[in-house]
Amino acid sequence: MTDPATRIEHDLLGDREVPRSAYYGIHTLRAVENFSITGTTLATCPDLIRALAAIKQAAALTNRELGLLDVERCDAIVAACIEIRSGALHDQFVVDQIQGGAGTSTNMNANEVIANRALELLGAARGDYGRLHPNEHVNMGQSTNDVYPTALKIAGIGAIRRLIDAMARLRGSFEAKAEEFRDVLKMGRTQLQDAVPMTLGQEFGTYARMLAEDEARLGEAELLIREINLGATAIGTGITAHPLYAGLVRERLSTIAEIPLITAEDLVEATQDCGAFVQVSGVLKRVAVKLSKTCNDLRLLSSGPRAGLNEINLPARQAGSSIMPGKVNPVIPEVVNQVAFEVIGNDVTITFAAEGGQLQLNAFEPVIAYSLFRSLAHLEAACRTLDLHCVRGITANRERLRASVENSIGIVTALNPYIGYRNATAVAMEAHATGRGVYDLVLEKQLMARDQLDRVLQPDQLTRPQALTAL
Amino acid sequence: MTDPATRIEHDLLGDREVPRSAYYGIHTLRAVENFSITGTTLATCPDLIRALAAIKQAAALTNRELGLLDVERCDAIVAACIEIRSGALHDQFVVDQIQGGAGTSTNMNANEVIANRALELLGAARGDYGRLHPNEHVNMGQSTNDVYPTALKIAGIGAIRRLIDAMARLRGSFEAKAEEFRDVLKMGRTQLQDAVPMTLGQEFGTYARMLAEDEARLGEAELLIREINLGATAIGTGITAHPLYAGLVRERLSTIAEIPLITAEDLVEATQDCGAFVQVSGVLKRVAVKLSKTCNDLRLLSSGPRAGLNEINLPARQAGSSIMPGKVNPVIPEVVNQVAFEVIGNDVTITFAAEGGQLQLNAFEPVIAYSLFRSLAHLEAACRTLDLHCVRGITANRERLRASVENSIGIVTALNPYIGYRNATAVAMEAHATGRGVYDLVLEKQLMARDQLDRVLQPDQLTRPQALTAL
Amino acid sequence: MTDPATRIEHDLLGDREVPRSAYYGIHTLRAVENFSITGTTLATCPDLIRALAAIKQAAALTNRELGLLDVERCDAIVAACIEIRSGALHDQFVVDQIQGGAGTSTNMNANEVIANRALELLGAARGDYGRLHPNEHVNMGQSTNDVYPTALKIAGIGAIRRLIDAMARLRGSFEAKAEEFRDVLKMGRTQLQDAVPMTLGQEFGTYARMLAEDEARLGEAELLIREINLGATAIGTGITAHPLYAGLVRERLSTIAEIPLITAEDLVEATQDCGAFVQVSGVLKRVAVKLSKTCNDLRLLSSGPRAGLNEINLPARQAGSSIMPGKVNPVIPEVVNQVAFEVIGNDVTITFAAEGGQLQLNAFEPVIAYSLFRSLAHLEAACRTLDLHCVRGITANRERLRASVENSIGIVTALNPYIGYRNATAVAMEAHATGRGVYDLVLEKQLMARDQLDRVLQPDQLTRPQALTAL
Amino acid sequence: MTDPATRIEHDLLGDREVPRSAYYGIHTLRAVENFSITGTTLATCPDLIRALAAIKQAAALTNRELGLLDVERCDAIVAACIEIRSGALHDQFVVDQIQGGAGTSTNMNANEVIANRALELLGAARGDYGRLHPNEHVNMGQSTNDVYPTALKIAGIGAIRRLIDAMARLRGSFEAKAEEFRDVLKMGRTQLQDAVPMTLGQEFGTYARMLAEDEARLGEAELLIREINLGATAIGTGITAHPLYAGLVRERLSTIAEIPLITAEDLVEATQDCGAFVQVSGVLKRVAVKLSKTCNDLRLLSSGPRAGLNEINLPARQAGSSIMPGKVNPVIPEVVNQVAFEVIGNDVTITFAAEGGQLQLNAFEPVIAYSLFRSLAHLEAACRTLDLHCVRGITANRERLRASVENSIGIVTALNPYIGYRNATAVAMEAHATGRGVYDLVLEKQLMARDQLDRVLQPDQLTRPQALTAL
Repeated sequence: MTDPATRIEHDLLGDREVPRSAYYGIHTLRAVENFSITGTTLATCPDLIRALAAIKQAAALTNRELGLLDVERCDAIVAACIEIRSGALHDQFVVDQIQGGAGTSTNMNANEVIANRALELLGAARGDYGRLHPNEHVNMGQSTNDVYPTALKIAGIGAIRRLIDAMARLRGSFEAKAEEFRDVLKMGRTQLQDAVPMTLGQEFGTYARMLAEDEARLGEAELLIREINLGATAIGTGITAHPLYAGLVRERLSTIAEIPLITAEDLVEATQDCGAFVQVSGVLKRVAVKLSKTCNDLRLLSSGPRAGLNEINLPARQAGSSIMPGKVNPVIPEVVNQVAFEVIGNDVTITFAAEGGQLQLNAFEPVIAYSLFRSLAHLEAACRTLDLHCVRGITANRERLRASVENSIGIVTALNPYIGYRNATAVAMEAHATGRGVYDLVLEKQLMARDQLDRVLQPDQLTRPQALTAL
Repeated sequence: MTDPATRIEHDLLGDREVPRSAYYGIHTLRAVENFSITGTTLATCPDLIRALAAIKQAAALTNRELGLLDVERCDAIVAACIEIRSGALHDQFVVDQIQGGAGTSTNMNANEVIANRALELLGAARGDYGRLHPNEHVNMGQSTNDVYPTALKIAGIGAIRRLIDAMARLRGSFEAKAEEFRDVLKMGRTQLQDAVPMTLGQEFGTYARMLAEDEARLGEAELLIREINLGATAIGTGITAHPLYAGLVRERLSTIAEIPLITAEDLVEATQDCGAFVQVSGVLKRVAVKLSKTCNDLRLLSSGPRAGLNEINLPARQAGSSIMPGKVNPVIPEVVNQVAFEVIGNDVTITFAAEGGQLQLNAFEPVIAYSLFRSLAHLEAACRTLDLHCVRGITANRERLRASVENSIGIVTALNPYIGYRNATAVAMEAHATGRGVYDLVLEKQLMARDQLDRVLQPDQLTRPQALTAL
Repeated sequence: MTDPATRIEHDLLGDREVPRSAYYGIHTLRAVENFSITGTTLATCPDLIRALAAIKQAAALTNRELGLLDVERCDAIVAACIEIRSGALHDQFVVDQIQGGAGTSTNMNANEVIANRALELLGAARGDYGRLHPNEHVNMGQSTNDVYPTALKIAGIGAIRRLIDAMARLRGSFEAKAEEFRDVLKMGRTQLQDAVPMTLGQEFGTYARMLAEDEARLGEAELLIREINLGATAIGTGITAHPLYAGLVRERLSTIAEIPLITAEDLVEATQDCGAFVQVSGVLKRVAVKLSKTCNDLRLLSSGPRAGLNEINLPARQAGSSIMPGKVNPVIPEVVNQVAFEVIGNDVTITFAAEGGQLQLNAFEPVIAYSLFRSLAHLEAACRTLDLHCVRGITANRERLRASVENSIGIVTALNPYIGYRNATAVAMEAHATGRGVYDLVLEKQLMARDQLDRVLQPDQLTRPQALTAL
Repeated sequence: MTDPATRIEHDLLGDREVPRSAYYGIHTLRAVENFSITGTTLATCPDLIRALAAIKQAAALTNRELGLLDVERCDAIVAACIEIRSGALHDQFVVDQIQGGAGTSTNMNANEVIANRALELLGAARGDYGRLHPNEHVNMGQSTNDVYPTALKIAGIGAIRRLIDAMARLRGSFEAKAEEFRDVLKMGRTQLQDAVPMTLGQEFGTYARMLAEDEARLGEAELLIREINLGATAIGTGITAHPLYAGLVRERLSTIAEIPLITAEDLVEATQDCGAFVQVSGVLKRVAVKLSKTCNDLRLLSSGPRAGLNEINLPARQAGSSIMPGKVNPVIPEVVNQVAFEVIGNDVTITFAAEGGQLQLNAFEPVIAYSLFRSLAHLEAACRTLDLHCVRGITANRERLRASVENSIGIVTALNPYIGYRNATAVAMEAHATGRGVYDLVLEKQLMARDQLDRVLQPDQLTRPQALTAL
């Protein structure tokens, strides 16, 4: 006898009781039992759920247009999809994000939830699949192998755009600081050794510039994943799909998702290839590397307060130590560094998964999705955190910075064109050995006249190219 | 005017309202505001919370013994720690697992929850830190820089032991299959090409053996992280700690955590070094590599059913396709592969974080912990899943396996000692070209007598070393 | 007393004897002594040496044009550079490729060899730097920090173009095979399980298509490294460089190197940023992943000959075993797999090195170059090897492939639109359990009429989308 | 007609001319033609060549003892092996290190060179394999699949021991510096922020200690690869090998190689498993991470000379810049960092290759060997370079270090036990805001008496645990 709180569903393994209240069905239930790995369900990835619903909606409309699906079922499916896209029923997506089966359980979960919600809208009972079937109607003309990667791409594009927005805001803050610090002269450093003068504005300008370049690269990466394989069905040959289906569904999906999608030229190739995900992850790794470098710099420049470089101050965000009173640590750059390390590790995971694809399919797309979506979300959070909690509040220790240039040996480089590399080396060595200043030594050795030396060493002359100053 | 539902707490940045009902305090609140990255809080890592409570308990008892903490406060702290160790108040550990500050916010969160629970037990109000202070009493003689890595190690040991248990169970199932298949002759393969005969039992025995070796390696790795730096305080010099503290607290903690801990010889080194975590992760990567290889094999051996090797059958776990009726896929090995890829990526994250340590501390321990605990937990789940949902139900296609040996060219290798490599090569080439059998060709060419040939090619002679058979 | 076979040179550390016959000088000698790591000298990387000479030539011409360098010295420097670009004196580039100093020793090596050869052309003695100085004249207006990355980019572009050529040839061979096998029907596989029919031509077409896409991505990556920072000098501020220098030298260098180079907008950023190298390496990793996947497939499809899939034959290249007579192994795909693994590892090395840059410079560019040039060269060799020694000679086992489709259960998928997913599942399960054929079962169950079934299962209908066939 | 300078050899692909002077034969020649990838031949890895010869020598002696090989052939083989082990004929090992075929070409190369040298010693012509055959006699009872991994392990042990020696010498230099700097007080830092006092000797002691621990871990890793699979032959079943062979050959090989080898319990498992190489590489990665961290510290502590920390001086090794006169860079730590990055990348390569093994063999052992041997050799070179060219010459800027402690706010931590965390925080904040000293502020606020304060702040009290000082 069946529990009154359950309904019976059937699959190739036999019958199973499903909670009567559940919108998901037997395929989802099997998957939940099979995959108890991370505890992180699809419900935590609303981008993906919305993308799946968009695809199912586009497919239903296309199938109706091709005369393969009746109006009533189509309308019910579309209505269910619209609800899900607006946020409903996400708690019914209960499969673990890391799952076997190349995403089949994700697709099945979507098919079942949509079918049961559509049945409800039709006035039928959940599970009454004779009336509207998850596979025959919701999944009509589709396969996991084209639906799932297409959904990943649509979801990924949304996440990429949010990341670009977060990067642009962070860049804006760095640009503001570059402007604020444009006249703050300081010593530049190469290999951590004193080099030649620059402005703190130039230094912060590079952080903005790096982000600008990465935003452009991410935009290019987005283009790569606008290419979808919907219409490929099982392996790209389009078996069971109408010849007009691929084109029509792409048009409808582009409209629904508000993304100008492209159908891949070779659907067999597109169905098995994860190259686009590998490249997107590679660009994310690039972003991570540069964000991490930037944070390393911020931590170094703000080191101290007394036994460090102490050139800039990061805003204090929390007490830094449970034992050292008054200590304040660069906790915001530190957390960004850690996100960067995670993204770099995720890139290796994605590389492994992509390499492991075999013949007509890559069975490991779920872990690619899991890793990619984490990289995207965590990088976005890291950029917003760095912007709001750190960069906007940075201040400069102007006195200290000016003093470091005045005492520097590195300004001797500016004299190369006048006194030559060999003389300049001798001056530098003597300055280092004696602690004396370059200015005095050059005069003492009568290598240059005082007024020429003054002109060459004018601060605004040191931080840009200059023509030779006549004697 | 303060909200009646809040209390005021103070830190070096000023005053803040904390929910009156919260056991955590202002430091935790700041951290929650600063670190909104993964959405995964400390509460999802009960091992770590319990380890922190064990340390705080051991420290309080030690401080009392050294006369630094009065009995009343000590008793209250100990009682609070015991509650937390038994599962209470975990929901008060609300900081994101990926956080800046080298774990300071985790330690502060623990100090505050314990202090406020202890205050409650003392009949005082939460936040009445004049009576019992999170830093002065709960954290007495400690620093995040010794408490946090020690907690990670204790938590890690628990997770390692659970992983070893899961591996041992999986190994048991492989051993049972090795026994079940001990007489099933099949062709071994090298480089995916037919090689020489073996038994399916030998093949499954290797999977068991690999696990046995990895269990041993993990056991060795556990020894590495029994070495703790408690007593190091801020940087390993033991500043603020009593000379007897390190030894006493280690003894008490060993008892409480039921792990025979060792105090590092050089606490300055131990405080900055993440080598042990790198090595544990390296061993987990090794486990992942071999589990993945095993699953690759299982998927290959069960490929088909008609156009694949079809040597073994994995238990059907769910319908394999939303479009291809009756298809059953190796979803369990596939999910294990994906966990392995995640673990390998985590190892790179940990490597990056470990390399990024500077001078007396590694600020990136939180992401090391985050990655390591995920690797441990997901590998454990993967082993249990593979065991229960796959290996135990594997069956062999004995007919097909026997036939593959009978038809094979590879058995010619066994004749090397009798007819020589050159003759054997000629026989093999002719067999391959003509489709004929090795047995007939050897007789036809009069290379061996039939009775000798029969003796050499006896199945049980082919799968083990043998002395030359006399003519 | 000096050895008559040596000359004395001087640097900031003092005097040193340099072999009189050497074109390199004291800076190079110090570097050789300091860096004895890999035994692989710059001489093994002619692309880089030629790029350095092109830059020095362009700089000399520009400096003459700006009136900073006299005609005589300019002519001598240019002549020396032309010789080196045509292959001369490469054996004088003796520094280890992995070196400290951010490439300074590589730049110094070039300066010294060019200066000494120029001196010789001027009729002066090697080492007579008063006449023409490596730093003052050859390096005029330059710094390692702009010369070295610019040289890496020019050398990299050459290597990228050769790789693209090798990939295009390999693609051509895959395309020829796709055409040759266009009518060879076979079973497609997903997750190593029998899926639905396709042609072997479609399968090989994907390998061609993957390469085509990767060629396009590499072409885009080349664009990224056309952006150079020449004129940046020490840290990007252009100190010691004439304001017109950067533009003029870029024009001259573009002509000499035959690459339309672009000067970075922000030279401070460009001098410290290794993002372009990270991205190029990321694209190479993508190429590696897909080449490796292709080789995995080739090895799988050619497995056997009797106990494997045995669908295609790779050309035999060598005896496969020292013990197993007649064994032939897929040695060419195997070596390509291994190159792919090396490239993936190199990408991690490059990521680490890029992340390690600090403030105004990345000191680790040499290992980035070392890794990147290896990846490029080995991938090129791998593509040429795979093309010539494997793909061109692949043949198909047409009988076996045809039979696999005829016996398959997977063709039932084509019946979905006619009999529904549920009926099709029942047919598939029965076929699997009984070993019977789908065709017979469908007729027996009167699910479709024979003539309709025949039309739906026509081979050329199975490998492409099709409209529903009327009853 | 044959070229008189060649001889004809035969394999399963047909006849080929081999240079008459060559000791290698047709199998080697085929491999050279097939694998033109890195240009790095086996000849560059003498450890491996010697290990192969040791194995062939041990096998010949064992086969003679078992009555399978006559004395004359055995003696000739043994004599040839002894010559090769002493350095002869290494130039005859001409196959590329990255090769397909799981090492078969390496084994074949060894078999052929040994056979031809043995033939020569027997007075026969090279190529007269009827007299003594590479496969039938030199390779008797062996397969590439047991010979090659065994050779890798023996070669690896030699390289590990040299690395441990280099690390021990480097450690000795760090220990000497730790002793030299034992009384040099300085500020310790956590998260790059001033923390609490320590000695420079403690800081250098950690570098020594890290190496000591890594030496121990490497020693343990060596134990793992003492386990060999010789006797496994093709796939571990021991086909063609005498039952006593495995034990006898291990004994003889242990003696010849001077390593106490162990025969794996399960030879089928041992033949396919690369876990030991993965773990050795994981330990090398650990060494790399810690060496890199140490070098990062050295570069940071020596940053300056005027705008950096400037706490220590690294010995000047070469001029640091082609443009900045007098600049000296930390080139030695920089090159060590780069080796570390390479080792970390190699670990990923090895991980990929190990994961790619299939069924009874891992075909990718050559790239594992290539990567592992590079990691070992480059790390050894890096340690020797760091020791000789850097650590031994490090000096301390004692004045500056002392001043940094005297001016520090961090010493307030030592007052925690006396004035409490809250008061100490207030003092620290005021010191930071006003630039005043902690000492004065504590007295001014009457938080401690002067004599107690003096006792607590005694330098030798600050760098170790201390009991509370009574008032």
